[in-house]
Amino acid sequence: MSMEKISIIVSKGSLEGIYPALIMANGARAEGIEANLFFTFFGLDAVSTKRSGHVKIGAVGNPGLHLATFIGALPGVSGLMTRYMARKMDRLDIPPIPEFIEMISDTGAGLYACKAACDLFGLTKDDLVPQVKDIITVGEFYEIAEGGQIVYT
Amino acid sequence: MSMEKISIIVSKGSLEGIYPALIMANGARAEGIEANLFFTFFGLDAVSTKRSGHVKIGAVGNPGLHLATFIGALPGVSGLMTRYMARKMDRLDIPPIPEFIEMISDTGAGLYACKAACDLFGLTKDDLVPQVKDIITVGEFYEIAEGGQIVYT
Amino acid sequence: MSMEKISIIVSKGSLEGIYPALIMANGARAEGIEANLFFTFFGLDAVSTKRSGHVKIGAVGNPGLHLATFIGALPGVSGLMTRYMARKMDRLDIPPIPEFIEMISDTGAGLYACKAACDLFGLTKDDLVPQVKDIITVGEFYEIAEGGQIVYT
Repeated sequence: MSMEKISIIVSKGSLEGIYPALIMANGARAEGIEANLFFTFFGLDAVSTKRSGHVKIGAVGNPGLHLATFIGALPGVSGLMTRYMARKMDRLDIPPIPEFIEMISDTGAGLYACKAACDLFGLTKDDLVPQVKDIITVGEFYEIAEGGQIVYT
Repeated sequence: MSMEKISIIVSKGSLEGIYPALIMANGARAEGIEANLFFTFFGLDAVSTKRSGHVKIGAVGNPGLHLATFIGALPGVSGLMTRYMARKMDRLDIPPIPEFIEMISDTGAGLYACKAACDLFGLTKDDLVPQVKDIITVGEFYEIAEGGQIVYT
Repeated sequence: MSMEKISIIVSKGSLEGIYPALIMANGARAEGIEANLFFTFFGLDAVSTKRSGHVKIGAVGNPGLHLATFIGALPGVSGLMTRYMARKMDRLDIPPIPEFIEMISDTGAGLYACKAACDLFGLTKDDLVPQVKDIITVGEFYEIAEGGQIVYT
């Protein structure tokens, strides 16, 4: 299979869950690969007008952060780690999530939200950023993804 | 590549880890796509007779829940969020995990458990729901998945 | 698509995040499938000379462990569960991460680290185990992965 299309499912609502998906979609477009993003479950936060600018790092249950577990659970630590990470990303020219979503949409990538998850969380198209083309079912996702790679993040 | 087959690896033992895999498998079968589920590591809970009905949400380290971290860590909060989510899913006609597993098996999807993970947790076929066709190695999984997409959840 | 190549992205820095990726890569090589590992975000811990031998289980936010959440958050519990899991893996002949990385590299798999993530965490090639062939961009990853499956773990 030649790498002509990639459809990336975004299922997590943490910084470390959302960024890899956005970076992969952006990188694919830069290589001329067709890219789609499908936001589902907590991943909907990335395209929710209320939440998109306030996504945090998962500071507990994340041994990769090298924090003692009980420190990660203290009030404020998740926000602190998030601001620290945001500053480092800014220095690397990785934009905050809302700007990154806009940028990726501008490259011609297709952004979609999952119908079942929107129903579950009571979200309609009005609650989502305008870059989301449509709220679609799993079946419609498979049609859009046809002929390419599916990557679940 | 035409979308003829999808093989979904279920590696997580939380509600938000297991449901997307089941929804994807079910959606694939509805589109006439061949679907296999391969349960490994904590994902084995979805097909364990003891655990399948008691899977919970991961209430800490999950910023998508929008709970203050220390609240997610309180005894009982994970169970509370799980019951809340279960009620919402019920209203959307998304069945509890054991019924969903049965339903997906009835559509003709193939359900398999990972041998290495079963050995690790001391599980035999008797500990798994009858819908699991077999306990197979990673090599056998690759043979079953051949010619289709592999999605890791 | 015949299963000729698989490129596995390792994004998590926990035992339960890293092992499935390594087991899949190793199993692919055993079947004669070309295999690449691409370490990004917290997954870089698997190939960091400082961290590779000290990866822990995520003991909170992981309902699959069947621990009460507040127990998982106690100091020392993550280390305790990690040692318990390591002993069980040892009995199943699953090697510790640093040895497993060596073994997989010896099978001819290609190991790569993600440039953006290395920049984010301030890591250079000197901080990584010698089995890592190169630090590459997302675009270069797509070139290496071309013609095969991409699996994100």
